[in-house]
Amino acid sequence: MASAMSEAKSPLAQPFPAMPQIAGVTPRIARAGYKDWGRCDLTYVELAEGTAVAGVFTRNVCCSTEVEMGREAVKTGSARALVVNAGNSNAFTGYRGREAVEQIMNQVAQHLGCDPSEVFVSSTGVIGVPLPLDKAQAGVAIVLQAAPCSWEDAARTIGTTDTFPKGAAMQAVVGDKTVTLAGIIKGSGMIAPDMATMLGYVFTDAAIAPAFLQELLSAANAKSFSCITVDSDTSTSDTVLTFATGKAGNAPIESFDSPGADAFAAALEAVCNQLAHLVVRDGEGAQKFISIEVTGAVSDDSARRIGLAIANSPLVKTAIAGEDANWGRVVMAVGKAGEPANRDKLAIRFADKWVAQAGLAADSYDEAPVAEHLKGKEISIGVDIGLGEGRATVWTCDLTHGYISINADYRS
Amino acid sequence: MASAMSEAKSPLAQPFPAMPQIAGVTPRIARAGYKDWGRCDLTYVELAEGTAVAGVFTRNVCCSTEVEMGREAVKTGSARALVVNAGNSNAFTGYRGREAVEQIMNQVAQHLGCDPSEVFVSSTGVIGVPLPLDKAQAGVAIVLQAAPCSWEDAARTIGTTDTFPKGAAMQAVVGDKTVTLAGIIKGSGMIAPDMATMLGYVFTDAAIAPAFLQELLSAANAKSFSCITVDSDTSTSDTVLTFATGKAGNAPIESFDSPGADAFAAALEAVCNQLAHLVVRDGEGAQKFISIEVTGAVSDDSARRIGLAIANSPLVKTAIAGEDANWGRVVMAVGKAGEPANRDKLAIRFADKWVAQAGLAADSYDEAPVAEHLKGKEISIGVDIGLGEGRATVWTCDLTHGYISINADYRS
Repeated sequence: MASAMSEAKSPLAQPFPAMPQIAGVTPRIARAGYKDWGRCDLTYVELAEGTAVAGVFTRNVCCSTEVEMGREAVKTGSARALVVNAGNSNAFTGYRGREAVEQIMNQVAQHLGCDPSEVFVSSTGVIGVPLPLDKAQAGVAIVLQAAPCSWEDAARTIGTTDTFPKGAAMQAVVGDKTVTLAGIIKGSGMIAPDMATMLGYVFTDAAIAPAFLQELLSAANAKSFSCITVDSDTSTSDTVLTFATGKAGNAPIESFDSPGADAFAAALEAVCNQLAHLVVRDGEGAQKFISIEVTGAVSDDSARRIGLAIANSPLVKTAIAGEDANWGRVVMAVGKAGEPANRDKLAIRFADKWVAQAGLAADSYDEAPVAEHLKGKEISIGVDIGLGEGRATVWTCDLTHGYISINADYRS
Repeated sequence: MASAMSEAKSPLAQPFPAMPQIAGVTPRIARAGYKDWGRCDLTYVELAEGTAVAGVFTRNVCCSTEVEMGREAVKTGSARALVVNAGNSNAFTGYRGREAVEQIMNQVAQHLGCDPSEVFVSSTGVIGVPLPLDKAQAGVAIVLQAAPCSWEDAARTIGTTDTFPKGAAMQAVVGDKTVTLAGIIKGSGMIAPDMATMLGYVFTDAAIAPAFLQELLSAANAKSFSCITVDSDTSTSDTVLTFATGKAGNAPIESFDSPGADAFAAALEAVCNQLAHLVVRDGEGAQKFISIEVTGAVSDDSARRIGLAIANSPLVKTAIAGEDANWGRVVMAVGKAGEPANRDKLAIRFADKWVAQAGLAADSYDEAPVAEHLKGKEISIGVDIGLGEGRATVWTCDLTHGYISINADYRS
């Protein structure tokens, strides 16, 4: 991938939405030249004093320095800036990579007069190449003086193999104030978040206690980023951060007893969900957006794991790519999930047409409407396990020649 | 896939070896016409009275009737015949599928004058379509009268998406006798055996107690079939059976204290290993055969799981397809395996060239010889976890456009 947004745009792309400014949040971009490309690759978001922060991070044990330091810094609950490098993940680069992150944190902290721990750094791109100190330093010096930019420009700049910029916004009424949330995200391959995800950022002007913000983000994450997969590969850099500047002037949200807490939680979950879906829509080589709803599992968690087993199955994903109602592959994937399931209670549907019930093909099964559904871009699969009340929905894309082309060429 | 062996032969194919006859074992083939194809698709192997049997089966909970019944029948330790249907897996077909298997067992048992439980049936192919009773009955009637065939014909007939027939043979000295083992196998996609595998059969003239044969087969399986993967998808029909006719006349092998037990165990493991490798060499779309050796894990089992995480990573497999020394993707896969690992102790090599050590790129790393290695058909990756003595080797193939082409078209 020589440069972001240069590939043919995903057929599942959506236009960048109208995104509001968030009081206390100022994005800027610059070109550090991390790769030999003619695009901006350094994003800087300045945050007002008093901004609360919460985050979820990859569980990949070979995670990047950025993830390690972010995981520590988020515990203080306080943030003043975000720096995102594109084109180099700086992962698996040992002390050299750590030096680069510390240099960026110190440089920004000096400029803002804050503690370096209040500067959050993310990087994605190739693994194993230390982020060049000189390019980072020069790039940061430029970006600190750059004019504010649009959300769309920022969303474009954090991307790597993404084919379109991704953002989502929501509002919620909190007490007598309206608070606004704006999120941007990047991600396209190496997507199989394990309680965390690619790079996603949600900014809000709400006033909210950091601990409660973390609680809400973790809950939203469990139903959004943790329910998507492109290729079952869990990135070493996955990070989602939420920053709350408090500039809306609402009475701070401390818990679910605070006025507007439910509305804010719902808005945050909705933004996270939209962002997660956008990543799937830009899945490498994706031609179809697939929703998999699992019901009747022994628990919600079991339902999610069954859903992900289906979503990660190369044979299910290639069947959808081929517009083939090969529901036997869904059976196979349920059976390999390692979760409680009983073959003879299993039922499977495409859209609202049941194709299999009680352990064999449905008597009423008519392939024509199912085949028609599979020709579309939005595919819906339902699986009822028949054992309990557990349910989950996961989202993925199909597996196509595009995925192979993109990933057999990357880096070289 | 209209018919087996009709696709372009895998570039990793190996010629069918010279395979000896096994006393007490007579293979025959016929055309049942399970699919609209002009090839034999029904294999029948008659076994002498007194033949011992052992088996391992898929752990997929949506397994076929054949697997369920085979798992029960193998407990008796006694076999007289094997019937293999190609082109229809008969999985997820409920009572209708069960009727078909019982009909075949009864038909053969009547012919041989044995108990139906001594007739082992396997089927692979499309999931969810009941095996047609009439075609099975007519086909079995024909095959019971057919002339004996070669191992190569039998290996060809059990195949579905396979592009070449697969067999392996060994001899071992047991006491004052030489015993012979001959194995055939089919499998190309939906390959991620979980303590079991695709369809594989090993025949021997050795005399051996069924319980000890089971012990040896389970041990051999753990180091062979359970260490290969093509696409991480675990079949609903995976079965490996070993039949021992006792015709070699050796003193029956009862335990490791029996003369020749070690030699027989080694020969069985060698046959299983060769057969497992042949399946990988016929992996759908495979262009390269990849060996992944994991050392320094906390246990052998942990090493195997790390190896499989690497072997199942679409990003690792596409990098190899692209002949790209993108070892960062190996780091990622180690990190997502869910096993103990420490980024800063991790070392990775391609062939004998260390590319990463102690958490960052190796100082001595020269990409040229690695790039040269990656141009070959036999790729070797080594990973040292640096934590313990656990080790395992797993085998897989690369992920190419061929896999997509084969699986986006299957069935339709």
